[in-house]
Amino acid sequence: MQLHQSSWPEVEAYLKRSRGIVIPIGSTEQHGPNGLLGTDAICPEVIAREAGEEAGFLVGPTFNVGSAQHHLGFPGSITLRPSTLIAAVNDWIDSLVRHGFTRIYFLNGHGGNIAPVNSAFAESYSAWSFDGEACPYQLKLENWFTLPGIQDLVKEMFPEGEGSHATPSEVSVTYYACPDAQKSVEMSPKLAPTGPIRDAADYRGRFPDGRIGSDPSQASPEKGARIVKAAKAALIGEVEAFFRA
Amino acid sequence: MQLHQSSWPEVEAYLKRSRGIVIPIGSTEQHGPNGLLGTDAICPEVIAREAGEEAGFLVGPTFNVGSAQHHLGFPGSITLRPSTLIAAVNDWIDSLVRHGFTRIYFLNGHGGNIAPVNSAFAESYSAWSFDGEACPYQLKLENWFTLPGIQDLVKEMFPEGEGSHATPSEVSVTYYACPDAQKSVEMSPKLAPTGPIRDAADYRGRFPDGRIGSDPSQASPEKGARIVKAAKAALIGEVEAFFRA
Amino acid sequence: MQLHQSSWPEVEAYLKRSRGIVIPIGSTEQHGPNGLLGTDAICPEVIAREAGEEAGFLVGPTFNVGSAQHHLGFPGSITLRPSTLIAAVNDWIDSLVRHGFTRIYFLNGHGGNIAPVNSAFAESYSAWSFDGEACPYQLKLENWFTLPGIQDLVKEMFPEGEGSHATPSEVSVTYYACPDAQKSVEMSPKLAPTGPIRDAADYRGRFPDGRIGSDPSQASPEKGARIVKAAKAALIGEVEAFFRA
Amino acid sequence: MQLHQSSWPEVEAYLKRSRGIVIPIGSTEQHGPNGLLGTDAICPEVIAREAGEEAGFLVGPTFNVGSAQHHLGFPGSITLRPSTLIAAVNDWIDSLVRHGFTRIYFLNGHGGNIAPVNSAFAESYSAWSFDGEACPYQLKLENWFTLPGIQDLVKEMFPEGEGSHATPSEVSVTYYACPDAQKSVEMSPKLAPTGPIRDAADYRGRFPDGRIGSDPSQASPEKGARIVKAAKAALIGEVEAFFRA
Amino acid sequence: MQLHQSSWPEVEAYLKRSRGIVIPIGSTEQHGPNGLLGTDAICPEVIAREAGEEAGFLVGPTFNVGSAQHHLGFPGSITLRPSTLIAAVNDWIDSLVRHGFTRIYFLNGHGGNIAPVNSAFAESYSAWSFDGEACPYQLKLENWFTLPGIQDLVKEMFPEGEGSHATPSEVSVTYYACPDAQKSVEMSPKLAPTGPIRDAADYRGRFPDGRIGSDPSQASPEKGARIVKAAKAALIGEVEAFFRA
Amino acid sequence: MQLHQSSWPEVEAYLKRSRGIVIPIGSTEQHGPNGLLGTDAICPEVIAREAGEEAGFLVGPTFNVGSAQHHLGFPGSITLRPSTLIAAVNDWIDSLVRHGFTRIYFLNGHGGNIAPVNSAFAESYSAWSFDGEACPYQLKLENWFTLPGIQDLVKEMFPEGEGSHATPSEVSVTYYACPDAQKSVEMSPKLAPTGPIRDAADYRGRFPDGRIGSDPSQASPEKGARIVKAAKAALIGEVEAFFRA
Ligand code: NI
Ligand code: NI
Ligand code: NI
Ligand code: NI
Ligand code: NI
Ligand code: NI
Repeated sequence: MQLHQSSWPEVEAYLKRSRGIVIPIGSTEQHGPNGLLGTDAICPEVIAREAGEEAGFLVGPTFNVGSAQHHLGFPGSITLRPSTLIAAVNDWIDSLVRHGFTRIYFLNGHGGNIAPVNSAFAESYSAWSFDGEACPYQLKLENWFTLPGIQDLVKEMFPEGEGSHATPSEVSVTYYACPDAQKSVEMSPKLAPTGPIRDAADYRGRFPDGRIGSDPSQASPEKGARIVKAAKAALIGEVEAFFRA
Repeated sequence: MQLHQSSWPEVEAYLKRSRGIVIPIGSTEQHGPNGLLGTDAICPEVIAREAGEEAGFLVGPTFNVGSAQHHLGFPGSITLRPSTLIAAVNDWIDSLVRHGFTRIYFLNGHGGNIAPVNSAFAESYSAWSFDGEACPYQLKLENWFTLPGIQDLVKEMFPEGEGSHATPSEVSVTYYACPDAQKSVEMSPKLAPTGPIRDAADYRGRFPDGRIGSDPSQASPEKGARIVKAAKAALIGEVEAFFRA
Repeated sequence: MQLHQSSWPEVEAYLKRSRGIVIPIGSTEQHGPNGLLGTDAICPEVIAREAGEEAGFLVGPTFNVGSAQHHLGFPGSITLRPSTLIAAVNDWIDSLVRHGFTRIYFLNGHGGNIAPVNSAFAESYSAWSFDGEACPYQLKLENWFTLPGIQDLVKEMFPEGEGSHATPSEVSVTYYACPDAQKSVEMSPKLAPTGPIRDAADYRGRFPDGRIGSDPSQASPEKGARIVKAAKAALIGEVEAFFRA
Repeated sequence: MQLHQSSWPEVEAYLKRSRGIVIPIGSTEQHGPNGLLGTDAICPEVIAREAGEEAGFLVGPTFNVGSAQHHLGFPGSITLRPSTLIAAVNDWIDSLVRHGFTRIYFLNGHGGNIAPVNSAFAESYSAWSFDGEACPYQLKLENWFTLPGIQDLVKEMFPEGEGSHATPSEVSVTYYACPDAQKSVEMSPKLAPTGPIRDAADYRGRFPDGRIGSDPSQASPEKGARIVKAAKAALIGEVEAFFRA
Repeated sequence: MQLHQSSWPEVEAYLKRSRGIVIPIGSTEQHGPNGLLGTDAICPEVIAREAGEEAGFLVGPTFNVGSAQHHLGFPGSITLRPSTLIAAVNDWIDSLVRHGFTRIYFLNGHGGNIAPVNSAFAESYSAWSFDGEACPYQLKLENWFTLPGIQDLVKEMFPEGEGSHATPSEVSVTYYACPDAQKSVEMSPKLAPTGPIRDAADYRGRFPDGRIGSDPSQASPEKGARIVKAAKAALIGEVEAFFRA
Repeated sequence: MQLHQSSWPEVEAYLKRSRGIVIPIGSTEQHGPNGLLGTDAICPEVIAREAGEEAGFLVGPTFNVGSAQHHLGFPGSITLRPSTLIAAVNDWIDSLVRHGFTRIYFLNGHGGNIAPVNSAFAESYSAWSFDGEACPYQLKLENWFTLPGIQDLVKEMFPEGEGSHATPSEVSVTYYACPDAQKSVEMSPKLAPTGPIRDAADYRGRFPDGRIGSDPSQASPEKGARIVKAAKAALIGEVEAFFRA
């Protein structure tokens, strides 16, 4: 069940049987020569949608532009400043809490979001902690790629060249979700370099085509289907446990 | 051409032939008994996507949660505070300008966004105006429903009950875009009341089922198709003129 | 009755018979070769003051610097960033609400204020909408030049050269209010050009002497008196209706 | 010469002979039983205007709502939060600096503004200090009541009951400026109590009619004229020295 | 008793006998050729600690970086923007108030903090003043060097060359507190120049070695001990009166 | 070498041989029945100071109040909101960069700081990334307890009851640094419970005496000495590598 494809009476009815929601959160940033700029939003979106359909939980709209300042050296990347992201995530939380949601699970597709989203959670809890009242809701951030079993599967599927950005696994998921958007590009070098992440100029200098340690030419829709299937199952387990907590 | 389904080299190539982009901007808010919470995001998204495909311009990701505090009385509505929206729109603009975009056209689906988005534009221009340098880019906000010819078409299609919120025209567009999400609901009263917009409690009191002046039970995918076709053509004309300006 | 010329016991007494107040809001920005920098503040101030005297309602101090970044290319223009204006208008509102005012009517003199002031209203209402409580006050923004009947009168008085910035009508009102500040300047060209408004450098390039589409050499105190008289009557009607609402 | 009664070409001409401007800054807050809510804005405004006329320097619009949270217990008081005031004063400064002003002298009428305006100055200088560039302008805040000679004069005129808020001297200045707004009120007790200033409830409890240590029933327009005359002369000396510095 | 060397049960026990706390607040900024960058934090810290030990009141951690933009021309100086300082001081206050502290006494070591800390207090009180509720706590800022009797003592000890920045008195206090950090530097000229404080470049130009009007080569640990002894006694009197108020 | 115990000429001299600095960053928050509120600041401070003395690098003042909203249920805990922390850390960075520091290493003592400090770094880099210029400095955050070898040592020293908050290892380090502040408290239960961290009320409910999974009654100054010795050596290696990078 997707919030943005539901009417308000449908959400009202849902709230009578569950107080939990899943929000896919991603980024719009370069993903190397053959990866989509929307990769980090598309991945959690498709996994959450399929899981929500199967398990009957509500999935909200995708928070599709995150914290990606280090990718600004590559055309098309869009970022929020961390301070803006914190404000925006808090507005989303406050809106959902207003309706009675008490479990908000953010399924994340982008490493750069982890720090600012967790900061946003601390900002949200702060209001209650200063007031001395018990906060009526719980917030959780989980990456789709660290769901139980996913790293093992991915390592098995891509024993070499998974890397850490523009990975064959995430590109596969997007090719599964958007088969028409596949791109066939020769990688050179085969394996991208690795290193630390700082500002955009530093990033572009270290990682000239945007990849970090990966060979995403291994990506395919079929591999994506397999990953989504596993992630969907893992997510359902995690979400159900969280909603019950 | 959609930015989030493109790779960065594809956007880099696009920038060699055009410096313009269209950003759909909407809201996630109640749209009455049979309208989708995502209506105001889905409408500009589908129109921009189809126009971009036909005319070859780039369409960015959808800014899908806007300024909708007055809808918070209805489950599922999500809003940014205007001050957050101003910050977020500026971060999007700054990112795109960083890549060399000089014409950014926001296709809007929600009346409540008009004031804060125009405020965001003034905030963006302010930096240049204070510095005394010429701003190298132009910003434009246009509603899909005020594109040339659309109001005439809509009045013709829905001589009665178009109203101003949860309108049969916008619901039709979403039914065209998301046929599986159609909902059949009897409207009562047939025509919703009208009045001013203030805070959420006031809104819910005045407009108990969320509609303003409308009868959206007239909506259908076929009508949506007709509207999208007209809006697409109008948008192409507007965008091409703006990119040339 | 003017708030800043009243004592607090007088305001306390006023609050026993009315919960409404009018706040003139303007701008300090260039108004062409013969217009005053204070035009947009002086116009609503004089109209509100005369109407308040006649009808007995309270008029607050004038919010005299607004959102005018596009005029910074002309010496003397002062602006708030939209984000600052939103914060400041909210502080004014919160102060007045603290005293029990429940109807706050902003009489505006400047087009550039419309978006940020409406954003400020949405920011103010947001607090209540997130909390789920009914907001106890109503906010309204109206331009003096769009009060009922004013555009008709102005069109009649200035069939040519009213334009949209540094208009003969607004300059007339200031000459009526400040007869010693009249300036006699030949306009060249007679009618100023028209066009869109963006940043300050763009504005100065398009509108070299500051005017948009107008010929303010037609201004006179007598014409100002006529406009003020009409605006005063219209304002009283609007304000009384709003206070009763 | 008043900025808001000047045209931009007049300000442009002024800037060729001087780079200095005086900004009256006040507050809108209760001033006891017979004092005007606008007292702290009216005083620096009238003094600056008369001095500017005599000495030929430019006087800007009055910053008429300042930092007065402690007066919110009395109807009619309006305040900015200090953080808003800092932002607004910086926007005024940035606007004036944009035009080439290099000496901005704030003539203050309200003790509560001193800390936030000085904080605003430090915020303004910070930008330059972080950048390592020399700031091209100088900022100065001076209270009209601490101009050279004023305290001596006032002590002589009001040997008893000058106090520190709603003083006979400031009320006299407003009666001189706005003779129609005089109010005749018996003070009880004759001399108001004294004490520290904290929040609004504490203030109202300590100072039930708003005065601190004063007996403003001694105020008269004639006394105001005498004070204004002295303050005008003192201000001219201060301003000329500052503009030359 | 020092908060950061206490356990929470110890603070809980303290709160049963007292609701007051002292927070040393300083700055990290150049203090001339022989003064420590930490001078303004070390002075109030040592005085508060010794007073707290003698009189049994609680001393919090030191707020060690303040508002010092004008010192950025000298290596090692660290500053908060005033707006950041206001936010941070409010977070400290809110935390302490959360635990039941109702008297928070900031012992200050730096003139540049006075305006922003007082602004922070006004910001803190504003929340209560807008709400119309009595603020349950009192805030006080006092400089150690303006405690009763200190200026007299210092004038007596340093009849010449006390000056106003990098003074022999404050350097003496730090030499007493940190004897290993003493530095022996010849001052040239013997007495530093005096003048106004603006941005960092202006400051460095006026005061080439950082001192203002002082000759800190007179500093010694013994003199520091004498000053600390006097300040400790004065502080105990002030704090006990404030806690009782 | 400690910045706050140095003079500016000493820092100027240091900058000729190194562009790196270490900033201890901690928190002021409850650390269970026998731990100090200042634990998380004292630990990185003492380790950094001893390492700086041995290896000759500069150590800045300690950022002593961090992000600890979840501890507000225990008397004495002080927190910054994450948004305030981000602003403050950026002001520290900007100040140090102003002087020419190009390597800023934050040695952290508190898990709750990791997300907001990394967000602060992203905020700092964003300015450069938006501008398209190479950022001239590098920022690094490292916890003292995750320095190479420390976890192994700690596991060996405390095979049971190390836990994750109010650990015997961190309490040992503070007892080594502040032997007079040792507290002897019987733990009950011997091992504290474990669980997730949310708001303050939730935290106090789950962890009644503040500990998470630990038995800090095992702490001693001798154990602290051993840990500090190891951490010092590890830190020197890390810092030297970072400064060279
Ligand atoms: Ni990714
Ligand atoms: Ni709509
Ligand atoms: Ni105008
Ligand atoms: Ni006053
Ligand atoms: Ni000092
Ligand atoms: Ni700890």
